[in-house]
Amino acid sequence: MKRTHLLVLGVYLLSSCGAEEGLNFPYDGKDRVVSLTEKNFKQVLKKYDLLCLYYHEPVTSDKVSQKQFQLKEIVLELVAQVLEHKDIGFVMVDAKKEAKLAKKLGFNEEGSLYILKGDRTIEFDGEFAADVLVEFLLDLIEDPVEIINSKLEVQAFERIEDHIKLIGFFKSEDSEYYKAFEEAAEHFQPYIKFFATFDKGVAKKLSLKMNEVDFYEPFMEEPIVIPDKPYTEEEIVEFVKEHQRPTLRRLRPEDMFETWEDNLNGIHIVAFAERSDPDGYEFLEILKQVARDNTDNPDLSIVWIDPDDFPLLVAYWEKTFKIDLFKPQIGVVNVTDADSIWMDIPDDDDLPTAEELEDWVEDVLSGKINTEDDDDDEEEEDDDDDDDDEDDNNSDDEDNGDSDDDDE
Amino acid sequence: MKRTHLLVLGVYLLSSCGAEEGLNFPYDGKDRVVSLTEKNFKQVLKKYDLLCLYYHEPVTSDKVSQKQFQLKEIVLELVAQVLEHKDIGFVMVDAKKEAKLAKKLGFNEEGSLYILKGDRTIEFDGEFAADVLVEFLLDLIEDPVEIINSKLEVQAFERIEDHIKLIGFFKSEDSEYYKAFEEAAEHFQPYIKFFATFDKGVAKKLSLKMNEVDFYEPFMEEPIVIPDKPYTEEEIVEFVKEHQRPTLRRLRPEDMFETWEDNLNGIHIVAFAERSDPDGYEFLEILKQVARDNTDNPDLSIVWIDPDDFPLLVAYWEKTFKIDLFKPQIGVVNVTDADSIWMDIPDDDDLPTAEELEDWVEDVLSGKINTEDDDDDEEEEDDDDDDDDEDDNNSDDEDNGDSDDDDE
Repeated sequence: MKRTHLLVLGVYLLSSCGAEEGLNFPYDGKDRVVSLTEKNFKQVLKKYDLLCLYYHEPVTSDKVSQKQFQLKEIVLELVAQVLEHKDIGFVMVDAKKEAKLAKKLGFNEEGSLYILKGDRTIEFDGEFAADVLVEFLLDLIEDPVEIINSKLEVQAFERIEDHIKLIGFFKSEDSEYYKAFEEAAEHFQPYIKFFATFDKGVAKKLSLKMNEVDFYEPFMEEPIVIPDKPYTEEEIVEFVKEHQRPTLRRLRPEDMFETWEDNLNGIHIVAFAERSDPDGYEFLEILKQVARDNTDNPDLSIVWIDPDDFPLLVAYWEKTFKIDLFKPQIGVVNVTDADSIWMDIPDDDDLPTAEELEDWVEDVLSGKINTEDDDDDEEEEDDDDDDDDEDDNNSDDEDNGDSDDDDE
Repeated sequence: MKRTHLLVLGVYLLSSCGAEEGLNFPYDGKDRVVSLTEKNFKQVLKKYDLLCLYYHEPVTSDKVSQKQFQLKEIVLELVAQVLEHKDIGFVMVDAKKEAKLAKKLGFNEEGSLYILKGDRTIEFDGEFAADVLVEFLLDLIEDPVEIINSKLEVQAFERIEDHIKLIGFFKSEDSEYYKAFEEAAEHFQPYIKFFATFDKGVAKKLSLKMNEVDFYEPFMEEPIVIPDKPYTEEEIVEFVKEHQRPTLRRLRPEDMFETWEDNLNGIHIVAFAERSDPDGYEFLEILKQVARDNTDNPDLSIVWIDPDDFPLLVAYWEKTFKIDLFKPQIGVVNVTDADSIWMDIPDDDDLPTAEELEDWVEDVLSGKINTEDDDDDEEEEDDDDDDDDEDDNNSDDEDNGDSDDDDE
């Protein structure tokens, strides 16, 4: 009964009566988010370096819609308080009342969050949560390029494996090629990280020639050298756009919806693997192997989801996909209706080998495995919208017969 | 202008009109959290395996206090929706209206969140955020002991370095000693992880004898063998209580307030180091070295904070402590008034060595460095409660003269 004996603070965000200080960041309940109108627009825009606009459908008298709106509002108010001294404005744009203004701003999807920074409009495509939004906005006000000066910084650069990174070597900050690189970086900030060095030792360590930019796909050991240096801003942007769908990518709270939108023919190959779990860790290693072996296949892009990154979605996914997320899973998800089919992994102690996974992936890409085939079996369940969310017995028609079973 | 061309989902938690499915978990705005009264108490308690009670001060007509309450309420509603099928009840207990009931339940601190599980009352001492609370509750409904069966699982066990872990070797699940271990684990669930194995191979790999339990302090390579096996439940509980303040610990969202409460003489030695940053990574390595060299000093307990774990608090800390969290920092914080003093690290490329850090720590423990000495200098600032939150020029009286400056 240890817990009950402790005097506890537990007053986070609420009160200031706690005995301890230094950890308490109380939500002060003040209104900071304002409604944007055509009248105050120019004045508000001028006031801030960054303007964060929530474009919402009209709030009706319906209680549910009011509660949903309240959640958004309170997240924004909390973020506004946290970033109070960072010169960021927060506003709401009512889609009906301010239809004209919204049109002028190019807003088209209700429920979206836009950020105006200089002449750019950036759409926030991540989880609508205070912590995610705060990090996103802080990343956005930093320099678009991070400079690498030392051996230590090279090591840290090398440790980044789960998202796209670019690095260029330039003479100095004044180099016109560095400036083009910096301009290109702004197109992708804060989603894709751009690094640069002006140091010969660092460049040598990374095998970079002067004015060269290397593009690192996630989980790949070797970068791709962007051809035909030196480059213009447009050439770099073009290259990144062409290469930004990797063979294996991690779903991240900050751009989860953009990733989901970027599907191939309406489907995603999705792998769930919890890195802190032994089987999940192992499964991720196998996935990386498959990705490295198939990095040249433009039709293959696996979305890796670590359930630890999405605590609020785990129960929803288990119910929607009818799988058990305590063990690794790989499957195909139809993004139109969330219909899905999952590889049969009968025992977590006997994970598929890279070869078996590759065979399975091949069957998915050829259409042999697809989300429609098993629909007859599931017909009964379709009308059944209640509690049996732990059904992990769905199997596919995979033929394990000819796969060799070597323990890595 | 890439972002603006993308068709984007961005409707998380709000609407269901998006073209894509499988990622959208819309907050449905339904009321699930009920008010607990003496009348419905027994009935509610009987209905759930776990009951989560928010004990709050009366909500006044004051707008600020209403907004603050709204935030708590909406977090709980969201958590209740996410965990809808997990047999967990969510209730509010009004401190004034239900004073009698609260007394009966042993509640004493308004603004606290309590969980009733069987005959235990657990206080949630973490960040009042939906994701943190969901993970906490899910951990609480799992088995208190995790069983390790394979080599892979041993490797995963070994990778856990930043919190306390215990592991025991027992004959089987039916062993009375295992049962005592399991009972002991329940006292600390979900804050401290208990592992067990029934496998000789695993036990050999971890140098565990039959019925022996090893206690691993965070960041230490070698465990402490709990003496005098076999143990009763009480003996294990006693041992953990005595050893649960480690030399170096990571501040975690799930028990941040408990850690903060567990200070030594009203102060904490706090180190900020961002693991994903090169200097932060390096600084953490140095901290680990200092901790390993001083693990036998009961007066030393350093709280390591990775700013990445607390996006909402970074700006608050920078303002409160007047430090720049883009670089590593170590200092002393008085938890009564959040007064603090920070080691002078003039250049992030020249971090203090382990020896220099040890000298500094010694000066803190001897009282030579303390939060009061510099208060004269700050007098002027005390009345100045506005925007200059980026003042990182405060220096302490540390004497660097006699420290040797070897670049490890």
